[in-house]
Amino acid sequence: MKVAKFGGTSLADAKQIKKVTNIITSDPERKVIIVSAPGKRHDNDMKVTDLLIELGEKRLNNEDVQDVLQFIVERYRDIATELGLDEHIVETIEKDLRQRTDYDPSHEGVFMDQIKAAGEDNNAKLIAHYLTHLGHRAQYVSPKTARLYVTDTPGNAQVLPETYDHLYELRNKDGILIIPGFFGYSKSGRIVTFPRGGSDITGSIVAAGVKADLYENFTDVDSVFSANPNVVDHPTPIKRMTFREMRELSYAGFGVFHDEALIPAFRSNIPVCVKNTNNPDGSGTMIESEREYSENPVIGIAAQKGFATIYVRKYLMNREIGFGRRLLEIIEDECISYEHIPSGIDDTSVILEADQLTKEKEETIIRRIKEELEVDDAHIEKGFAMIMLVGEGMHETIGIAARATKALAKENINIDMINQGSSEVSLSFAISEEDADKAIRGLYGEFFAAKDVLQ
Amino acid sequence: MKVAKFGGTSLADAKQIKKVTNIITSDPERKVIIVSAPGKRHDNDMKVTDLLIELGEKRLNNEDVQDVLQFIVERYRDIATELGLDEHIVETIEKDLRQRTDYDPSHEGVFMDQIKAAGEDNNAKLIAHYLTHLGHRAQYVSPKTARLYVTDTPGNAQVLPETYDHLYELRNKDGILIIPGFFGYSKSGRIVTFPRGGSDITGSIVAAGVKADLYENFTDVDSVFSANPNVVDHPTPIKRMTFREMRELSYAGFGVFHDEALIPAFRSNIPVCVKNTNNPDGSGTMIESEREYSENPVIGIAAQKGFATIYVRKYLMNREIGFGRRLLEIIEDECISYEHIPSGIDDTSVILEADQLTKEKEETIIRRIKEELEVDDAHIEKGFAMIMLVGEGMHETIGIAARATKALAKENINIDMINQGSSEVSLSFAISEEDADKAIRGLYGEFFAAKDVLQ
Repeated sequence: MKVAKFGGTSLADAKQIKKVTNIITSDPERKVIIVSAPGKRHDNDMKVTDLLIELGEKRLNNEDVQDVLQFIVERYRDIATELGLDEHIVETIEKDLRQRTDYDPSHEGVFMDQIKAAGEDNNAKLIAHYLTHLGHRAQYVSPKTARLYVTDTPGNAQVLPETYDHLYELRNKDGILIIPGFFGYSKSGRIVTFPRGGSDITGSIVAAGVKADLYENFTDVDSVFSANPNVVDHPTPIKRMTFREMRELSYAGFGVFHDEALIPAFRSNIPVCVKNTNNPDGSGTMIESEREYSENPVIGIAAQKGFATIYVRKYLMNREIGFGRRLLEIIEDECISYEHIPSGIDDTSVILEADQLTKEKEETIIRRIKEELEVDDAHIEKGFAMIMLVGEGMHETIGIAARATKALAKENINIDMINQGSSEVSLSFAISEEDADKAIRGLYGEFFAAKDVLQ
Repeated sequence: MKVAKFGGTSLADAKQIKKVTNIITSDPERKVIIVSAPGKRHDNDMKVTDLLIELGEKRLNNEDVQDVLQFIVERYRDIATELGLDEHIVETIEKDLRQRTDYDPSHEGVFMDQIKAAGEDNNAKLIAHYLTHLGHRAQYVSPKTARLYVTDTPGNAQVLPETYDHLYELRNKDGILIIPGFFGYSKSGRIVTFPRGGSDITGSIVAAGVKADLYENFTDVDSVFSANPNVVDHPTPIKRMTFREMRELSYAGFGVFHDEALIPAFRSNIPVCVKNTNNPDGSGTMIESEREYSENPVIGIAAQKGFATIYVRKYLMNREIGFGRRLLEIIEDECISYEHIPSGIDDTSVILEADQLTKEKEETIIRRIKEELEVDDAHIEKGFAMIMLVGEGMHETIGIAARATKALAKENINIDMINQGSSEVSLSFAISEEDADKAIRGLYGEFFAAKDVLQ
C-alpha cells in the first residue's frame, strides 16, 4: 500500500487534477492520498492558501470580505466546471467558506488556522467527488474522522503519539481515501495547522500511521538535485539517497522538503519517493535508510545565507571550566539557538542565524558577555553563508575535505569556519554571503561535473 | 635593560655556569638574572630539584635523609670548588638545606614547597657569590626582598597584581641582581612554588615588573623549531614569531615553554628571545607582538595526543534551545574542561583531554546525558591526537586549509575533526593517535620543506 501526497502546483487547476487522478488510478496500491490546496497556475498567480490568509485578515480587521471570498469560490468553480462536476460541490465549498469566515475571531490564531485549513479541506472534498464522478470508489476523509490528533498550538501543530494507531485503522476503509494535508485536530476538536511544509508533514505522518510500503511525494520537479538549479545549470539528479542525507540537505536550505516534514516517515523507516506529477514515469528520487555510497560519497551541496557569529576572546578561556556553558546560557536567555561553536585556546565563536538577533538582543548579549565573563573582546559579525557538503561515508573517504577546500581556494574564496566532526554525513564551511553561489559552483565542478546520475 | 633567565642545563655544573657568567657580563644591559636549580649534566644524571623532592619525601616518611642531603651538598661543593670558591658558600648552602629539612612537615604541601625551592635559591646565592668573586658588582635578591608575592596555594602559586610594582623597584638596586626562579612568597611569608615551567614564569613576571626592554630565555636549544625535532629531521628554525603563535604552539605540546609561562611578558608587550647558552651568538628566536607574515603564513606545526570525544546524537538537537548548555553543564559538573565542540544538525561531539576521564566519570556523564537529555545515542571514543597548524594571517591566506587537508590525504590519514574559525592563528585537526607523526611529517613537507629559516 502506498501513500501519495500531491503538492499545490499539482492541483492548481483541472488540467493538473486530471493528471493527478490518472496517477492515482493507474496504481491500485495508491490507496491513501494527501492533497494540498490549489497552488499557483503561473508565476503571477496566487495560491488559494494566500487568498484565504487575505480573507482571514480582512475579517479580523472588520473589512469587507465578499470579493476575496467570491474570488476563492470562483477558483474552485473553474476547476469543478472544467472537471464536469455539478454545481452542488461548489455550493458545499462556498457554504463551508462562509461558515469559517463567520467563526469566532476572538482568538486570532485559532480563527486563522481554521480559515487557512479550508484550502486543503475543500480541495480534498472536490477531488474525492471527482474520482467518484469518474466511477472510482473514493471518499473524502477528514483528519477529524481519521483522528489525526495534534497539540493545541495554532500554526505549529505537533502530532500526538496515539495518532499513529488511529491512522492505522484507515487500512480498513474502502476505496481510495482523500485526506486534506496541512492540519490536524486538537483533542478539544479545534483545527490546528502544521508549520511550514504542512502537507508534507501530513503525508509523512499518515504514511507512518498506515505503515505504507512507500510514501510518494508528488511535486513539480523530476527529482532532488545535487545542487540548487538556480545556481548550477542542470545539476545532476539524485536517484537514490538516505534519510540522513535528505535531512542535512533540506536543513541547509534545499527546497524540496521542509527540514522536519519527513521525520515521521524516517522514524518508521518508510521509503520516500519524490516524483513529478508532470512526468510520473520518471524514476524520481528514492529516499531510503541505506545506500551504496562507495562510488559517490558526496551526494549534494547546499548553501544557506544569513548567518552571524558572536566572537569572544579571553586569555586562558579554555582553562576556565564553565566558560562555554556560561556563554551559551547568556545566548539561551535571549531564546537564540546556535549552529556551531568553533573554538581556539583563547577565543570562541558562536555561529547562528542572524534573523534571531534584534538590536536589543545584540546589545544585551554583548553587554552580558563583557560584564559576566570579563572577556578581552566580544563582538558580532554578520553576512556569513553556510555551505554544506553532504554524503554518507564522506568521512570514511579520505581526501574529501582536501578536494572541497581546494575547490574553494580555486574560486579564491576565504573560509571563515570549517566544521567537520560530529555529523558523519556533512562538512560545512562558513564563508561570506557574496561568495555563496561561486562556492556552490566551484564545489559542484569538483564533485559532480563528471557524473550524470547519482545512484 | 634586559632580564635573562637561565635553565637547569645551563647551570648544571661549573663549566656551564662559567658560560652563563660570561654571557651575563658580556652585556651591561643584562642586569636582572633569573636562575634555575642545577639540572642534568648528562642523560642519566639527576636534577637537584628531583634530589630535593626525594629528600623531602624521605623526611615525610621519617626515613634517614643524611645520604641524599649530603649528595645534594656535594653537587654544590663540586661546582663551588671548580669555580674556585671558598668552603664558606658551601657551608651556607648546607646550613640552609638542614634548616629546610627540619621545617615543620605537618602541612605536606607547604613543607615540600620550601624544600623544592632550595635548588634555585641556593644556586642564586652561589652564582651571585661567584660573580662577586670574579670582581663584578652582583648581589643575590630573594623573592622575599623583592616582594614577589603570590597566592598561598602550594605548588600552584599565582602572582598577585601588586607584585609588579614591587619588582619595578629592583631598577634602583645596584649591580647585577641574581634572583632564584620557580617560587615566590605568600603574604604570610611562606614559600610557594609555581606550577610546571616555574623559572620561566618567574622570568616572565620579573621582566614585566621591571619593564625590561627584552626578556632573554637561555636554554639548551638554538631556537624554537617549526616542528618537533624528534619527529621531523632538522626542522626549520623559527627566527621571529608572535606571542599568539608561541602561545598556540606551546599549548599544543611545543616543548620550549610551558603554556602560560610567558603570559606576564605577553601582557606587558615585552619581547622575548629564546637563546642557547651553548651558542649565545646564535640569533635564537624572537617572540614579539607583531611580525611580517606575508611570506610564511604558517610558522609551526604541533601535535598533542591523548584526546577523547563524547559523541551525542538526538533528532532536532539544534532546535532544542539550551541543549548545548545542558550538555556542557553535565561535563562541567565532573570538573572536566573541553577543547572543541564540533556539531551537526542532530549530533555534537565534545573533544577533551582523555586523562581527565575516570571510569566513574565516564559512566556518570553518559548516564546523565542519556537520562537528562533523552538522546538517541551517547558514547565516548578515545585515542585521538590534535594536530595544530599555527601562523598569523593563516586565515587571510586562501588555500591553507586546502594544502593542509591535501597533505593529510596524501599520507592517507582520515580526518575525524577539523576546527577552523575562532582563533585567527591556528587550524586544528583531530586524527587517530597512530597517525600523529605521519601527519606532522606530511604537513611539514607541505609547508616547510622548501624554507631554511622562518623570519
